[in-house]
Amino acid sequence: MEFLIPTRTSRPSDDPIFALNTEARARAAAGEAIINATVGALLDDEGRLSVLGSVAQTLREVPPNVGAGYAPIEGDASFLKAVVADVMGQRPEADWTVAIATPGGSGALRLAMADFLDTGQAALTTSYFWGPYRTIADELDRGLATFRMFDANGRLDGADLEHTLSAQIEAQGRALLFINSPCHNPTGYSFDADEWRQLAAIVGRAADRAPVTLLIDIAYARYGQRSLDEAVDALLGLAGRALLLFAWSASKSFTQYGLRVGALLAVHPDPEARRRIRSALSYSCRGTWSNCNAGGMAAIGRALTDPDLRARTDQERAALKSLLDRRVEAWNSLATDAGLRYPRYDGGFFTTVFCADAFAVAARLKEEGIFVVPQTGALRVALCSVAERDIPRLVQGIARHVTR
Amino acid sequence: MEFLIPTRTSRPSDDPIFALNTEARARAAAGEAIINATVGALLDDEGRLSVLGSVAQTLREVPPNVGAGYAPIEGDASFLKAVVADVMGQRPEADWTVAIATPGGSGALRLAMADFLDTGQAALTTSYFWGPYRTIADELDRGLATFRMFDANGRLDGADLEHTLSAQIEAQGRALLFINSPCHNPTGYSFDADEWRQLAAIVGRAADRAPVTLLIDIAYARYGQRSLDEAVDALLGLAGRALLLFAWSASKSFTQYGLRVGALLAVHPDPEARRRIRSALSYSCRGTWSNCNAGGMAAIGRALTDPDLRARTDQERAALKSLLDRRVEAWNSLATDAGLRYPRYDGGFFTTVFCADAFAVAARLKEEGIFVVPQTGALRVALCSVAERDIPRLVQGIARHVTR
Repeated sequence: MEFLIPTRTSRPSDDPIFALNTEARARAAAGEAIINATVGALLDDEGRLSVLGSVAQTLREVPPNVGAGYAPIEGDASFLKAVVADVMGQRPEADWTVAIATPGGSGALRLAMADFLDTGQAALTTSYFWGPYRTIADELDRGLATFRMFDANGRLDGADLEHTLSAQIEAQGRALLFINSPCHNPTGYSFDADEWRQLAAIVGRAADRAPVTLLIDIAYARYGQRSLDEAVDALLGLAGRALLLFAWSASKSFTQYGLRVGALLAVHPDPEARRRIRSALSYSCRGTWSNCNAGGMAAIGRALTDPDLRARTDQERAALKSLLDRRVEAWNSLATDAGLRYPRYDGGFFTTVFCADAFAVAARLKEEGIFVVPQTGALRVALCSVAERDIPRLVQGIARHVTR
Repeated sequence: MEFLIPTRTSRPSDDPIFALNTEARARAAAGEAIINATVGALLDDEGRLSVLGSVAQTLREVPPNVGAGYAPIEGDASFLKAVVADVMGQRPEADWTVAIATPGGSGALRLAMADFLDTGQAALTTSYFWGPYRTIADELDRGLATFRMFDANGRLDGADLEHTLSAQIEAQGRALLFINSPCHNPTGYSFDADEWRQLAAIVGRAADRAPVTLLIDIAYARYGQRSLDEAVDALLGLAGRALLLFAWSASKSFTQYGLRVGALLAVHPDPEARRRIRSALSYSCRGTWSNCNAGGMAAIGRALTDPDLRARTDQERAALKSLLDRRVEAWNSLATDAGLRYPRYDGGFFTTVFCADAFAVAARLKEEGIFVVPQTGALRVALCSVAERDIPRLVQGIARHVTR
């Protein structure tokens, strides 16, 4: 007797990245010199998780009754206000912004996929994408389509985006576009101001024909070289034509991956449209996880708004970013010399090396003690988890095996 | 331009219980003598949230790197083992139990509804039920059907359950039954051993015809007069014939409503069936909230397993239960004298008074400063949030207005 419904009977047993990470740690524990470039968290050069001490302290200071009580379904009001200010700053469009708390950025992506795309329709994202985008779509009986991310010059392929978006509107009468920048996972690519403007223009034209929702996944924004303001300024002109969403996460920006604090922001000038959107998202929360980590929201809200604490947090984060930036610099210097092909990379947790036979190459690298995550046509390299001193060996290993 | 999909455009703006609670608090703050019997959390006689001090302390002691790092998708292994032991004890069937961490009990209900019931099919529950069961079904494009909860003697209406379950199997080829006991929300009813055995027999017969999944929502189990073991012993014989699930929650049992720590347990004797179920549930987690509160799982896991801490927690909880039991006793004595009709009530957060015109009666009670939650044919009274000294006024008020 099969109790699972038919779509769920043959789900994969294990997350492939998790399995690689487990193997890497086991071999390192057995004494081997392992480079584990699979972990999606920022580790220091001794392989320990980097944690912002000010945030950890703030969490311990949350009054017990605040953490123990239910937060409102849509999230703690002062936390949400702080997140809106974090993204929108002093712009008047902050008043156009609905914010709903979610368990991490994943929860925000899930809400968007559930409420702005119908069963059987497909979201659209870049040809290189974070695997769980597909998992979220699967779980909701939605699909995931892609457009070619890079053109011949290694920049946003606007022509393919416009063409694919147009075909989607033709086929399904609406579109939901996921864009992860700055510091795209897995490629490390960050749009520049021109690319943000190009994106806005393409989405604007599509939005004149059908409802188009544009979600910007900003999970890694604080580790980019360029300010998120470039994106916000370029995109706000869409508000009202397209629906503009931001998937915000405390996981990386506050090094609280396990806290499950995030938010979905929706920008729309019409109060009545905002009311409907807020109700739909809040109902989705109630019907999925009910409400979010109350103590986590209280602590992150304080870290965003208390001036002294915010200054301390920013300072500690700047030190972590420097650590990461030194790795990025070392990588760029060595990988360029070694002739590796990878997208423009100026900050963030990951980069991706183009590689024709990625799965076979990753397997060979693993034999040599170098763990990277293969996907079709590319190897994801998590510099966030590689010590600076290991980068020469990492680059040499990849260069030795990579196939063009 | 409407960006929401058609099923989401007219979701209700506010949770009705939340709205009542807000009004009650505002009037109390303005100096009125308010009885607020709407809150689903245990408050002391001064209206403050009751928090187990040992658990709050344990949360503060979670090492920062444990709370900050991602927990595995399916949850922290030692937490899950502790939850299985909490429900299954030393029974050999503990080895047949898959456990998956979820954000509170709500997350567990959501997983069950997503993976054991198909789009368009309806789950089955009691005619009095916790409103979010329907929200969870709505959110997943599933339905919710009910059977008559009480027979003429005020006991489980097994005949109507058997009939309705049978009709569902006929119509949809499978069934998912949600049973909330001990301490049913909203009626306060707890099955006795005979009723558990009756339930097992009915489900067993249905399960011979089609896949039947029986979920026991045990969120309030620790506040019942009878041990959960009665349920487990009566139901374990179903394992393999029906799929037996438990929705476990730390929200009430550890007074950590805002922590979002829960689990779904699935009992099946076949390892291959368990593997498929674990994969499906884990994939659902990855595609919905990704992973759960790491620090929360670490703390609750410790509170379940560390012998000294567990003893302290049990002792503190026993004091809270005494507080609640005194209210239950006062209620039973006064409400019986006043001729109120309500189901057998021997413990738990809520009771429900039968009342023909519940919405009008609740509105009149509100004018007098007594807040209860109306539903068709009944008023939910949250004794968990009413001081013992207020119970006479509460009972008199209800008795004055209740319609037969």
